[in-house]
Amino acid sequence: MTESKRPLILISNDDGADWPGIRALTRVARTLGDVVVAAPTQHQSGMSSSITIKNPLRTTLVKKVEGFDKFAVAGTPVDCVKISLNALMGGRKPDILLSGINHGQNIGVSTAYSGTVGVALEGAVHKIPSVAFSIDDYNPKGSLLYCLPLVEEIIKKVLEKGLPEGVCLNVNFPKGPVKGIKATKTAMGHWDNEYDHRVDPAGKDYYWLQGTYTCDNPDDTTTDFYWLNQGYATATPVRVDPTDHASIGHVESIIDF
Amino acid sequence: MTESKRPLILISNDDGADWPGIRALTRVARTLGDVVVAAPTQHQSGMSSSITIKNPLRTTLVKKVEGFDKFAVAGTPVDCVKISLNALMGGRKPDILLSGINHGQNIGVSTAYSGTVGVALEGAVHKIPSVAFSIDDYNPKGSLLYCLPLVEEIIKKVLEKGLPEGVCLNVNFPKGPVKGIKATKTAMGHWDNEYDHRVDPAGKDYYWLQGTYTCDNPDDTTTDFYWLNQGYATATPVRVDPTDHASIGHVESIIDF
Repeated sequence: MTESKRPLILISNDDGADWPGIRALTRVARTLGDVVVAAPTQHQSGMSSSITIKNPLRTTLVKKVEGFDKFAVAGTPVDCVKISLNALMGGRKPDILLSGINHGQNIGVSTAYSGTVGVALEGAVHKIPSVAFSIDDYNPKGSLLYCLPLVEEIIKKVLEKGLPEGVCLNVNFPKGPVKGIKATKTAMGHWDNEYDHRVDPAGKDYYWLQGTYTCDNPDDTTTDFYWLNQGYATATPVRVDPTDHASIGHVESIIDF
Repeated sequence: MTESKRPLILISNDDGADWPGIRALTRVARTLGDVVVAAPTQHQSGMSSSITIKNPLRTTLVKKVEGFDKFAVAGTPVDCVKISLNALMGGRKPDILLSGINHGQNIGVSTAYSGTVGVALEGAVHKIPSVAFSIDDYNPKGSLLYCLPLVEEIIKKVLEKGLPEGVCLNVNFPKGPVKGIKATKTAMGHWDNEYDHRVDPAGKDYYWLQGTYTCDNPDDTTTDFYWLNQGYATATPVRVDPTDHASIGHVESIIDF
């Protein structure tokens, strides 16, 4: 890729470079700037902010044309961000990092397990304005067309206005027409009956993750859960700092031996 | 395990059930209550809050004596917590969840990648008082004896006083004598030169994760980074809710199309 005054956009996801969501996001991004895609070789759903430590990473340049490089990375979503910034982008720092578009919402407590959000958090660690996009539709062939105008507007606005340091943006779209978009907080919740217990032909137990999710604060009109279920897109600021500052006093009482 | 009025303690880690850190933690815990250990079959360092979605989980009962069950779980650290609560503990809810003791500190931005902390966060999702323990010594044979009195005191105090809902405790010990213990917040920081680039005999690139970590606020006397490096143990409250509430207004300006 040659030097350019267009914005430099890094894109990753947790499903791999050939999935419909990242292809749609890439099409939008290429109208706005030069693009580097670096996505996992294999599905990495539920990989959170995990990193590859005990094995080396390998990368493959899949495509290279003017203003567009595409890499496959045999690692986790966060590995894709790290290796891009350290090795694949020739030392250039992207103006924005985009993740997704993930088929399957990433709201509420599930945000913590999301590789899609993990990508955006890693961008925030590196002080790059970063946005994760997900859609409340688990069918990978489900149409994304109706979201793309909003995706484009959000990218333009984040390029223009930036994001606070240490904060990324977690955007979720409803399945079906979007009534509007709301700034939200992450809803809290819990799962019941998280596993489907089965027995194999040899008589040994095995367990499939499933479960039913219950929002703990369903009537709170400030959450991603509330507005996504009302048919609105949601935009939640998610932070790198995990400290619960309000609990420092309680911790002091715990360690007061 | 029979019913008992002793506290019920669930223990996991990210290194597996036979590692010195979890064995030391288990010895302490068994003096305080009935114990269930459920730890990964294989090393799971850097696995963050990842979960196994596309494959089933398998579990093995490794040991069972009065007041002590030990399971190996072929999954991630968070899987160990979920399967324990859903299948391995007969529906009983632990009074406390402990994670570690991890050889290798989990402070600053690295907290996000930590499977050790991921375990404690999962406990907090399930509204169980949960504590992650790590030591700033990467040698798995490094002595843990000098930490154990503090570990015991912390477990007793958390059993007595609990933790705020949605918050777990991330405890780190220095290598060597402990001067004291401080309630801290997570330091912010970044890595440089994150990969060691090598070329294999076939001429293909591969990359080992390494990197040098720089704390962005080294003089801030309220952080885990500061006090751990002064020889103190640190206790940081870490929360499930990832929302950066202070940035909601900025997000509203981003989505004001």
